[in-house]
Amino acid sequence: MSRFWSDIVHTLTPYVPGEQPKVSNLIKLNTNENPFGPSPKVLDALKAETNDVLRLYPDPNASELKSAIAQYYKVDEANVFVGNGSDEVLAHTFAGLLKQDKPLLFPDISYSFYPVYCGLYEITPETIPLNDKLEINLDDYHTKNGGIIFPNPNAPTGQLLSLTKITKLLERNTDSVVVIDEAYIDFGGASAISLVKQFPNLLVIQTFSKSRSLAGLRVGFAVGDPALIDGLERIKNSFNSYPLDQLAIHGAVAAIEDQAYFEQCCHTIIATRNKLSQQLTELGFEVLPSATNFVFAKHTVENAEEIALKLRENSIIVRHFKQVRIKDFLRITIGTEDECQALVDALQQILTR
Amino acid sequence: MSRFWSDIVHTLTPYVPGEQPKVSNLIKLNTNENPFGPSPKVLDALKAETNDVLRLYPDPNASELKSAIAQYYKVDEANVFVGNGSDEVLAHTFAGLLKQDKPLLFPDISYSFYPVYCGLYEITPETIPLNDKLEINLDDYHTKNGGIIFPNPNAPTGQLLSLTKITKLLERNTDSVVVIDEAYIDFGGASAISLVKQFPNLLVIQTFSKSRSLAGLRVGFAVGDPALIDGLERIKNSFNSYPLDQLAIHGAVAAIEDQAYFEQCCHTIIATRNKLSQQLTELGFEVLPSATNFVFAKHTVENAEEIALKLRENSIIVRHFKQVRIKDFLRITIGTEDECQALVDALQQILTR
Repeated sequence: MSRFWSDIVHTLTPYVPGEQPKVSNLIKLNTNENPFGPSPKVLDALKAETNDVLRLYPDPNASELKSAIAQYYKVDEANVFVGNGSDEVLAHTFAGLLKQDKPLLFPDISYSFYPVYCGLYEITPETIPLNDKLEINLDDYHTKNGGIIFPNPNAPTGQLLSLTKITKLLERNTDSVVVIDEAYIDFGGASAISLVKQFPNLLVIQTFSKSRSLAGLRVGFAVGDPALIDGLERIKNSFNSYPLDQLAIHGAVAAIEDQAYFEQCCHTIIATRNKLSQQLTELGFEVLPSATNFVFAKHTVENAEEIALKLRENSIIVRHFKQVRIKDFLRITIGTEDECQALVDALQQILTR
Repeated sequence: MSRFWSDIVHTLTPYVPGEQPKVSNLIKLNTNENPFGPSPKVLDALKAETNDVLRLYPDPNASELKSAIAQYYKVDEANVFVGNGSDEVLAHTFAGLLKQDKPLLFPDISYSFYPVYCGLYEITPETIPLNDKLEINLDDYHTKNGGIIFPNPNAPTGQLLSLTKITKLLERNTDSVVVIDEAYIDFGGASAISLVKQFPNLLVIQTFSKSRSLAGLRVGFAVGDPALIDGLERIKNSFNSYPLDQLAIHGAVAAIEDQAYFEQCCHTIIATRNKLSQQLTELGFEVLPSATNFVFAKHTVENAEEIALKLRENSIIVRHFKQVRIKDFLRITIGTEDECQALVDALQQILTR
């Protein structure tokens, strides 16, 4: 507390990111990072760019990256916004599009940064409960609103909505912006980017942190109607002209270009996820159907927090949330096959003790 | 314009950064970049960090970097805040400390991003005119205020205030935050960081973009009382948990550590600046005394905008501002000795034509 703070600072409840432990030798299945490193072509591109050019400001518009993303998704560069991780893209979206007089609708169980942005930008949130299967039911998003946002697949539950259901929502909800946060879409979902040309109020946000193995580089982007993108650009250019550094721009371009590597990583993670889900079920877990690089699982007998603590003693970290409706669940990132097997072995010991 | 924008978006006048031309073969003296590349040790550190670790999130607190900065300036880690370029640090400072009921005071001729932040955060600005010599006179900063911010040395004028004058302001102005934006301090000034322990309302902001040759890496920082830093952290952690990527953190640490290279670069730039100022004076320019890596100069006869256009025809870019009080001036970044000589040669031709 300080008398020098702006009023808003006193009211904030900042986001708490998943732990980034400083000790090594841990099997880190707590923050949904990709178990595979970035494409070797990304590392080559980064090294090639590590030279005297770093003395210069980067392109404030990151045009090369926008162009690569536009080409990949068959949209125009004017449909693309880029930022310093999808968290920054989300922040600008809350400030520039979702701050309205009417409340913002989002699921009660969802990305826990959404209520934090509402606090920062003084937006009234209205949370819509997931159904009993912990699914988003878009029919419940019918109240007058200043915007709707949800992850698809949802986090931390991992469950996917079809484009058919999303289209129905968009046909019905035409007076406010609908933001779909697709951090995990590449692990089994169909992107709503295909709907952007049809719906001028749709904004789709993605990240390079998960499927592109670049959490350490901080690159996120949004795709939407040029008028929405223009709104985001106006906020961005009133906040920080150069959010993406020279290396981030070029590393991300190389990541988009190496499609084969990207597909191989996603494919392997999906296969490992399916195997792990099966193994967890055999160990007495109820595993929600996942279209992400994590599973959300509840043991039918044992306490989730205790399992997490015991895993930690075995040098395996998973994520447990204390929120009431999901306190019996663990969110487990899909690691390599070996890491997942080590998890299963540890669980076998813990649960039969 | 779009009906989907938040109200604030309609009112913004975004910042326009200096041109980053995409053609090469230009002598680029328009955005105050360092003419020398980053330290070879920085490039080595960046390459060493370009590996599979990029799949992981960086340390959200960037502790290694905070610790390096703290050690360098003999303060505690709790005195240090880091961000994605000093522009992001400034943005959070406006949101978290300078947004108050009373107006924010800053010079009429100064960093043109300040009024943009005021627009974004709905802060009332009160500009205080520079004196007739285009100097900041801190005695003029006496009205009731919610904060004071100025660059030292000032930009684009390049003139420096002494710590004695700054101390007098701080002794008098104890009820609001005083922010000193020291982007150019390493080119001949004394940093007010030495006053931080004495004044709990002082925040000093610096960047790696100028003296550390890392504009392309986007790293800035602030030093101040832990309570001020805590306010900034609360804003940052409500906006984006990971503003600095893995490479930026480690490149910046290496830059701080290679003090010899840093001192050599600054020394050379100061020597070149002194020589260029002399040459420009001989060519009929009035050159303001500069403590930065640029000079601000007005020709006694020729029109500044026309000189800039003619230089451009000679593949040399300098910066001209259309603002009334300074429209007769050019801001010229100190390049290498060869670049500055090429500028002088071109000016000789232009002015004697």
